[in-house]
Amino acid sequence: MDSNSSDMIPLRQTSSRKRLDHKRDTICIFGTGDFGRSFGMRLLKSGYPVVFGSRDPKHSILLPSGAQVFSHADALKISKIIFLAVHRENYDFLPALSDLLDEKVLVDVSNNIRMNQYPESNAQYLAQLVPKANVVKGFNTVSAWALQSGSLDASSQVFVCGDDNKSKQLVMDVARSIGLTPLDQGSLLAAQELENYPLQLFPMWRLPFIITAGLTVFFFLYCMVIKVIYPYVEKNVDDTYRMMISIPNIVFPIVSLILLGLVYLPGVIAAFLQLYRGTKYKRFPNWLDTWMLCRKQLGLVAFAYGFLHVFYSLVRPLRYSSYWRLVRNVASQVKKNTTTEVEMIWVWRADVFYALGILGFSVFGLLGITSLPSVSNTMNWREFRFVQSKLGHVTLLLCTAHTAVLGWNKFLKPTSFKWGLPSGYILSMVIPCIVLVLKLILITPCVDRMLTRIRQGWERKEKSSGNLNI
Amino acid sequence: MDSNSSDMIPLRQTSSRKRLDHKRDTICIFGTGDFGRSFGMRLLKSGYPVVFGSRDPKHSILLPSGAQVFSHADALKISKIIFLAVHRENYDFLPALSDLLDEKVLVDVSNNIRMNQYPESNAQYLAQLVPKANVVKGFNTVSAWALQSGSLDASSQVFVCGDDNKSKQLVMDVARSIGLTPLDQGSLLAAQELENYPLQLFPMWRLPFIITAGLTVFFFLYCMVIKVIYPYVEKNVDDTYRMMISIPNIVFPIVSLILLGLVYLPGVIAAFLQLYRGTKYKRFPNWLDTWMLCRKQLGLVAFAYGFLHVFYSLVRPLRYSSYWRLVRNVASQVKKNTTTEVEMIWVWRADVFYALGILGFSVFGLLGITSLPSVSNTMNWREFRFVQSKLGHVTLLLCTAHTAVLGWNKFLKPTSFKWGLPSGYILSMVIPCIVLVLKLILITPCVDRMLTRIRQGWERKEKSSGNLNI
Amino acid sequence: MDSNSSDMIPLRQTSSRKRLDHKRDTICIFGTGDFGRSFGMRLLKSGYPVVFGSRDPKHSILLPSGAQVFSHADALKISKIIFLAVHRENYDFLPALSDLLDEKVLVDVSNNIRMNQYPESNAQYLAQLVPKANVVKGFNTVSAWALQSGSLDASSQVFVCGDDNKSKQLVMDVARSIGLTPLDQGSLLAAQELENYPLQLFPMWRLPFIITAGLTVFFFLYCMVIKVIYPYVEKNVDDTYRMMISIPNIVFPIVSLILLGLVYLPGVIAAFLQLYRGTKYKRFPNWLDTWMLCRKQLGLVAFAYGFLHVFYSLVRPLRYSSYWRLVRNVASQVKKNTTTEVEMIWVWRADVFYALGILGFSVFGLLGITSLPSVSNTMNWREFRFVQSKLGHVTLLLCTAHTAVLGWNKFLKPTSFKWGLPSGYILSMVIPCIVLVLKLILITPCVDRMLTRIRQGWERKEKSSGNLNI
Repeated sequence: MDSNSSDMIPLRQTSSRKRLDHKRDTICIFGTGDFGRSFGMRLLKSGYPVVFGSRDPKHSILLPSGAQVFSHADALKISKIIFLAVHRENYDFLPALSDLLDEKVLVDVSNNIRMNQYPESNAQYLAQLVPKANVVKGFNTVSAWALQSGSLDASSQVFVCGDDNKSKQLVMDVARSIGLTPLDQGSLLAAQELENYPLQLFPMWRLPFIITAGLTVFFFLYCMVIKVIYPYVEKNVDDTYRMMISIPNIVFPIVSLILLGLVYLPGVIAAFLQLYRGTKYKRFPNWLDTWMLCRKQLGLVAFAYGFLHVFYSLVRPLRYSSYWRLVRNVASQVKKNTTTEVEMIWVWRADVFYALGILGFSVFGLLGITSLPSVSNTMNWREFRFVQSKLGHVTLLLCTAHTAVLGWNKFLKPTSFKWGLPSGYILSMVIPCIVLVLKLILITPCVDRMLTRIRQGWERKEKSSGNLNI
Repeated sequence: MDSNSSDMIPLRQTSSRKRLDHKRDTICIFGTGDFGRSFGMRLLKSGYPVVFGSRDPKHSILLPSGAQVFSHADALKISKIIFLAVHRENYDFLPALSDLLDEKVLVDVSNNIRMNQYPESNAQYLAQLVPKANVVKGFNTVSAWALQSGSLDASSQVFVCGDDNKSKQLVMDVARSIGLTPLDQGSLLAAQELENYPLQLFPMWRLPFIITAGLTVFFFLYCMVIKVIYPYVEKNVDDTYRMMISIPNIVFPIVSLILLGLVYLPGVIAAFLQLYRGTKYKRFPNWLDTWMLCRKQLGLVAFAYGFLHVFYSLVRPLRYSSYWRLVRNVASQVKKNTTTEVEMIWVWRADVFYALGILGFSVFGLLGITSLPSVSNTMNWREFRFVQSKLGHVTLLLCTAHTAVLGWNKFLKPTSFKWGLPSGYILSMVIPCIVLVLKLILITPCVDRMLTRIRQGWERKEKSSGNLNI
Repeated sequence: MDSNSSDMIPLRQTSSRKRLDHKRDTICIFGTGDFGRSFGMRLLKSGYPVVFGSRDPKHSILLPSGAQVFSHADALKISKIIFLAVHRENYDFLPALSDLLDEKVLVDVSNNIRMNQYPESNAQYLAQLVPKANVVKGFNTVSAWALQSGSLDASSQVFVCGDDNKSKQLVMDVARSIGLTPLDQGSLLAAQELENYPLQLFPMWRLPFIITAGLTVFFFLYCMVIKVIYPYVEKNVDDTYRMMISIPNIVFPIVSLILLGLVYLPGVIAAFLQLYRGTKYKRFPNWLDTWMLCRKQLGLVAFAYGFLHVFYSLVRPLRYSSYWRLVRNVASQVKKNTTTEVEMIWVWRADVFYALGILGFSVFGLLGITSLPSVSNTMNWREFRFVQSKLGHVTLLLCTAHTAVLGWNKFLKPTSFKWGLPSGYILSMVIPCIVLVLKLILITPCVDRMLTRIRQGWERKEKSSGNLNI
């Protein structure tokens, strides 16, 4: 840090006594594009002297005020850290500056247009071009717009990698002083991953998305058959209007409940696997690991579908079809001149149905809120597990009960099987019921005790108990 | 940091020139359980050379690729920082290694099963076992699963304590480089607290939970008496079905409003106490401090109850009982063949009632959102206070008015007192009204001016004004 | 850090061997007000020895246990870092201590009551008073209450500025060790801004708030004319009750849709500007920059209004006026003795209307959630843009379609123009439709290709392509 005191441009000297303390490393930026300019502006704000290196220093425009512009060579002479904000295709001017770059920290901030566009990462290519420089990859995940506007809406994390730890440290210090959170990602080998990172589009969501889309399409067609095609074929009734609200409002809760079951199924499978193996020191099969890693996403999609279900249901009294049906019912009742008595069992059933639904949705909402990163950060691991496991199973129980009350006494009535097909809600309860039964087995005292011992490191048929554990 | 250059295993040398820069402290991990393995994997990813110390190095399985396994003694020789991922019961192999541990940093990551399980903390016990080592407690709050999956859903904070600051700093550096946020907790005396931390289960929520549960049970029974037992005894009507939705939908808003009042009551009490004492430099009584510290939790429970109240209310037109009542009412009215004119006062009353409710709930929702850690972090203190105090009192005012409109002109009508008991909503308004009246007094200009002066440090009957303040 | 080993108060020595390692800089605090005391308590917890400097050390009360109290001069002698928690008016005792303050780090934590209360910042004034000390401004944004309670609800960020980098670093280290996030803001010139910061009240929200308030008032009056005054004047009907729910429920969705249009309008304007100019290397006009920077706030207000619209709509079946209208409809239908057939087109229209509304609101909710800082932090820039741009335009499309279905076939019917005025929803669709049409042009393949090239740095009529970019 103090090796370049002679090179310093003393931008701010308030008294001669403080001259040496004052200095901050001058930062050099090659490239006056969006990123270069925005980054320079931010550095200047944080008190760094900034010089831009340009092929044509006299005609560089739009640079932040306070920055200086030199030729590449001159800019190199006065700074130890160089940010290279240039596309890979334009790296060719660098080898000529090789000697000046000796021992300098050269930060590659470039991004590509496609994933794995080149055989080696830009940073590794750069390291080959100028072997004397200490190449560090980083800042490529940060947006120019965010740097400029100061509103770091997307990630304020700066991933950094490089082979030289001291250089990496210098770059991380810069990141920290301008309000970003640097994160060391290891050697320059990681550069490829870093360059791919900003090109990713929700990789963790892909599998849950496919599962959800598949289930949605399947159940939409299934309900179409039962609710639209069946009445049309058998009774010649045109119920196509149901496609807009009625059928989605059957599909959403079905898929939501199945997804919620899928969130908690891998957990019980894993527990039974550990019980069967008598140890926790064996890796789970890959499919189970993959499944467990996308539980959060599955749960959030389930919640989104539950949310849609709630609003599709609440809108019912506002719909023209329900209003019309109400008027017709009342009118017919008035004409018949009969005083129908309320059936208490139906009152109870409806109220239990709605109460379970609301409670299930509310606890589900609680799960959703606690999965917000900033909320889960305030919990310790035990609390997080309490919420996500205990409350999660309560949600599953409430939602399954809500569905079961819908069925009431029609579950196995033959008349409710159109063309021999069971109603959708019966299908939706299969996985949740399996999960709940397995979970019930797991929380019986004797099984629970065994599982707890295994999870604390105990192994069945152990010869040297402490061996693996120490 | 540079004391162990001779011990270094030069894992990654890309050129001889960079050999010295390359090094990162080799990290040694004792214990190949979940935590040890996951932690090793994470360290390797971040570019640290990792060695495992094992009693039986040849039979250690499942270790992350890239790590080396040695005997305890050999592992110790090549690293300065040792993470001890072993249960306390297995510490007994350490005293034999005492000389090798001299001046090493020994990080105790162990957790217990119960709070205060042992008289002294594991870390302090460890420090007695190997007095030559610099024992640091830390990382025990981090989950193995989170380290492995990379998704730090629960806290990414690493609490660290220890008697030797330099050792602590080294450990905190390690935490920082693998993407965690270290937090210094002082000397090794804090280890007990750190070991208890992951065993805590929402300690701040205990009191609000008890208050809420008490109020809920009381008002549920109270409403049962008025709404179910009274009609049964006096009129022999079976209204038990009301238990599912009608009564909860009376209990939720009542408890919600009372809790909301309890959120803002300590603030006005504190203000009057300061006015009475004429100074802010006196500690509040303990009960008031405790109360003030759980305001956020009380407010969140109040919001959750408000949320339930909203959905229990919106579900009303969907209920069988309300549908049946509607049909009966309309039919009887049509039969009477009277052209009832709409009573404008009832239209107004209903609309004002709902509008106040919706606005109250919305502002309450805003309060909830701004209490999310990541949102409140973006606000300065004045903005946070503006939202939580100003908007909070607006919420209280709207919700109280919403309740008052429900009462309308029945507040003191004798017929609405069943068995002499006032309706629940009258009880619920007592605390909010007290708070609002006291707040009204506090914001009158003269009282407000006095209070502001006191809060800026002024004291009544001061002898030496600047004395305490400087 | 090791310069003051001789000054150290050896508070905690567990063994003589570790004495030197043990030390942490003793922190001195001048001022025993709220901030001083709370800050001292927090420092003590984190293992710092703390001394208070007081004019009257024997009569200082309420200090945290573990801290020592000395005279100002004595306190200065044993610590390198002094936090000055004193109002600016009381700085006058400092010049007398000038020699003792030589080379010490003097941290000004003071705040003012009004913005720009004094010509120069408190910290700069302090630097003139004691030129020998290294003045650092910082910690003024942190609340005493938060320090004390440990719950850093509002910002845990500590902004720090100062002319001496080493001093600044020491102060930032202190912040870091007590769990705060220091953020370097550059030289002491930034102190004015830092002192103004805690006095700000949502500066970014001012413009969106004014726009929203203006639109709300205008459309409220506009709807009053059409819905209340027009029927009163023309038909002598008193519909004033509509002011509470019906008219707000027209105003909210109108303003929400307009604001949503305003969120995406600047983006398309900017794109067309870039297309017209043939380069991205020209600054946008200031009004466009300002507009773009408040898009998030506009969007959040639009969502809040959408939220209100949803609940105002859902409450409709609960309202007395809608109940009364139902009774009237049924009665008239019974009297006519006609069996009206349901009109399928109205069923479809209502269902499409509600489905579009719910989907629009849900996607809008998704946008809202992803704009939470902690959620957007977990996304890379591409994902964030995908959500905010792609999903944002989908939201706009859904909400505009929702509104268009409301109009159905009445859009240009003369009878729906009361006094020649178009309905509010027609006005609300103007901006969204402009945005959608312009966006449609932008995503046609040929325009899109051109724009992408420009955004990757290409320029029309370029003479020396790489020039500006390097």
